[in-house]
Amino acid sequence: MAETVEQNNVQSQLASISESLNDGTFVQVRKLLHDLQPSDVALLLESSPSKTRNELWQLIDADFHGDVLEELSEDVRNGIISKMVPSSVVDALEDMDTDDLAETLSSLPDPVLQSILKSMDAQDRLRAEKALSYGEETAGFIMNTDTITLRPDVTIDVVLRYLRLKGELPENTDTLYVVNRHDNLIGTVPVTKLLTSPPDMSVNEIMNEEPETIPVDMSDSEVASMFERYDWLSAPVIDKNKTLVGRITIDDVVDIIREDAEHSMMSMAGLDDEEDTFAPVGKSTQRRSIWLGVNLVTALMAAAVSDLFEATLSQLAVLAILNTIVPSMGGVAGNQTLTLVIRGMALGHVSQSNSVWLIKKELAIGFLNGVIWATLIASVIALWKQDFMLGVVIAFAMMMNMIAAGLAGATLPIIMKRLNIDPALAGSVILTTITDVVGIFAFLGTATLFLI
Amino acid sequence: MAETVEQNNVQSQLASISESLNDGTFVQVRKLLHDLQPSDVALLLESSPSKTRNELWQLIDADFHGDVLEELSEDVRNGIISKMVPSSVVDALEDMDTDDLAETLSSLPDPVLQSILKSMDAQDRLRAEKALSYGEETAGFIMNTDTITLRPDVTIDVVLRYLRLKGELPENTDTLYVVNRHDNLIGTVPVTKLLTSPPDMSVNEIMNEEPETIPVDMSDSEVASMFERYDWLSAPVIDKNKTLVGRITIDDVVDIIREDAEHSMMSMAGLDDEEDTFAPVGKSTQRRSIWLGVNLVTALMAAAVSDLFEATLSQLAVLAILNTIVPSMGGVAGNQTLTLVIRGMALGHVSQSNSVWLIKKELAIGFLNGVIWATLIASVIALWKQDFMLGVVIAFAMMMNMIAAGLAGATLPIIMKRLNIDPALAGSVILTTITDVVGIFAFLGTATLFLI
Repeated sequence: MAETVEQNNVQSQLASISESLNDGTFVQVRKLLHDLQPSDVALLLESSPSKTRNELWQLIDADFHGDVLEELSEDVRNGIISKMVPSSVVDALEDMDTDDLAETLSSLPDPVLQSILKSMDAQDRLRAEKALSYGEETAGFIMNTDTITLRPDVTIDVVLRYLRLKGELPENTDTLYVVNRHDNLIGTVPVTKLLTSPPDMSVNEIMNEEPETIPVDMSDSEVASMFERYDWLSAPVIDKNKTLVGRITIDDVVDIIREDAEHSMMSMAGLDDEEDTFAPVGKSTQRRSIWLGVNLVTALMAAAVSDLFEATLSQLAVLAILNTIVPSMGGVAGNQTLTLVIRGMALGHVSQSNSVWLIKKELAIGFLNGVIWATLIASVIALWKQDFMLGVVIAFAMMMNMIAAGLAGATLPIIMKRLNIDPALAGSVILTTITDVVGIFAFLGTATLFLI
Repeated sequence: MAETVEQNNVQSQLASISESLNDGTFVQVRKLLHDLQPSDVALLLESSPSKTRNELWQLIDADFHGDVLEELSEDVRNGIISKMVPSSVVDALEDMDTDDLAETLSSLPDPVLQSILKSMDAQDRLRAEKALSYGEETAGFIMNTDTITLRPDVTIDVVLRYLRLKGELPENTDTLYVVNRHDNLIGTVPVTKLLTSPPDMSVNEIMNEEPETIPVDMSDSEVASMFERYDWLSAPVIDKNKTLVGRITIDDVVDIIREDAEHSMMSMAGLDDEEDTFAPVGKSTQRRSIWLGVNLVTALMAAAVSDLFEATLSQLAVLAILNTIVPSMGGVAGNQTLTLVIRGMALGHVSQSNSVWLIKKELAIGFLNGVIWATLIASVIALWKQDFMLGVVIAFAMMMNMIAAGLAGATLPIIMKRLNIDPALAGSVILTTITDVVGIFAFLGTATLFLI
């Protein structure tokens, strides 16, 4: 009867599989794996350290290798493929849809890709090269070529007989495409419309004559945002001559939507989107070191600013104690603005026409934040350190830094986008450098003028 | 002919609309708005400051109010509804699907909701109360009730005649449901199967007898991850008695997938998921102040740790200059780990069975990071400040803090999740407090022992 697989189930299966693995009862593991869906096997592999992952892979029926590979994330998939014999990879790729084939092949390191292409027979190689011919992250790259096309002048009755003869429709077919003799797309017919229309009507009487289409070179993020905005289930892809070349279905778009949404979060923490949670230690350390290196440089820059005020610091140790408060508050406020603007840009809300308004708004928030937190910190410090002037000095620095944070948080992503730099990747580190430098300079500079 | 609406088009429309608004040519604006799809009007409203937003709303044909409202994000929608007369809201809600109705009503502040319910006639109120009866963020809340059900013993020919009589199927219908006389779901029939099967076969011969179902009280995030994992387009929802109560379609799930993915990024920056980029200054300042307040407390805690070493700091001003480097590096490394683990948990990769492995891995990375960055910082400082012992002291502190960062970054989200606290919301601030305190304590503590 009706049955539900919940995440917890998969995790308990994971537990029993890893238990059986530890016990060395491989027959048991093989049986457990056999009963899972390919996407659940993929989840299992992604949830396992690389050693276990390789053991598990050996125990998966080779017939399912292709189905599992297409469900895996890039990093994990590449790790597994690089350990397989090229001829087994070729076997696994055989039944993949064009879009999955393109994705799998394109992410492989070049030497691995070449050795796999070399092991293919001529026909498979042609198919693979065709799949790879569209640029990565374009509509052509994520489309499938298994469209069902109709001629406009046939009756629905004929169409129904044709479909019954075919026996099965490609997965996720919700729309049939109407083309003229040059294969130009001239209309679409939802399958539900075929069901509800009288059999003696002709296709051109029921077809939608102005279908929304996707150019084959549109970027995949733009494709995703159109699917999301217009609630499409599928859309036809056309080339420059308006010839139908394929279709994109929502299940492929869902992955792009998630990846795009995750991209900002991962980038802002200095991580690669595809970073595998269970990658080996050495690989992870290496990947994360770029970001730490950049941060070391900015931390040294902040220290160099403090260094300018060594004389002041040696006279008043209390300044050293309070020196981190203003930069820290500026960093948080600036990152709030930055994150909001980056998300607004990803959703298509921020454009040239409203960016000035947005910058003014964030500047106003910076000013207001400045008033609030300057007052608060001045009171706390005046009470804690029993020094009114010290309170005034830190309040002034807080005010300056909050305004700088609002301004930098709003303008940085807008400027970076215009320069074609990904704001999620470098925005946060540049912002923090600004708020650190302004914060320290304002605090120690004002202190040097008024307290020494 | 085939036509494509790109994001840029919408933004140029936005530009010409705001131009016309400024010129006061409202007739022109009204015309431009009339030609847009509801989702594009929604994008326009979301991309406008609240003053413009209200002006635009007045110019949208009241017949489209409902269609536009259901496309808006929560914050923006509530802002508009709170300015409408209750009776116009009731008119706008009339044609909404149950799931959109539930979402719209549930997010309203209680007084507004009550006044709207009061303006409804008995039938509408009943429908609204039914839509609200399922808990927010459950399958029941996001489902639609417009299922088409079949009996198992009829022939396909009869089904086809029935559907032709109906004339139109509910939006995004890809599957019909087979129920017994108690309305229990006993099978599903994809519409494509109806097209390809011989008309004289009966429904129970072609139906899928073990359909995957969703319990009405499953959380919406879990629903989303199942749709994503199994590439579903729709799924039937059943109650405790296995009675079919509705269906969930992928277009509603796409929104949840994006929101879940964005949630972590927004929370980690101390923002509300629904925060409107163009909200008024006062409202935004207030919303963001909680996070700044929390950060002020942690910054003061870090200052208090430095305060313990006031004597040391007053003897050696160079320590004040370098005091921010170790906490900053620890914060970045810890946040990398934290972000990765939070994402791994969201994807269902991290569970009890592998969390120990994961903590060990991140601890090892922390150790390796420690070795690398301690060596590097020691060399830089020994050269810059011409002081070998100072280099050794900062290297030791860096080593300690990197290990603390890896340990805290991996364990914090796991512990917090077990305590039912959202790690994306508070994880980052707790982590930074730990790396600040450990970093300062290790650096100034070691310096006091060895340099004074």
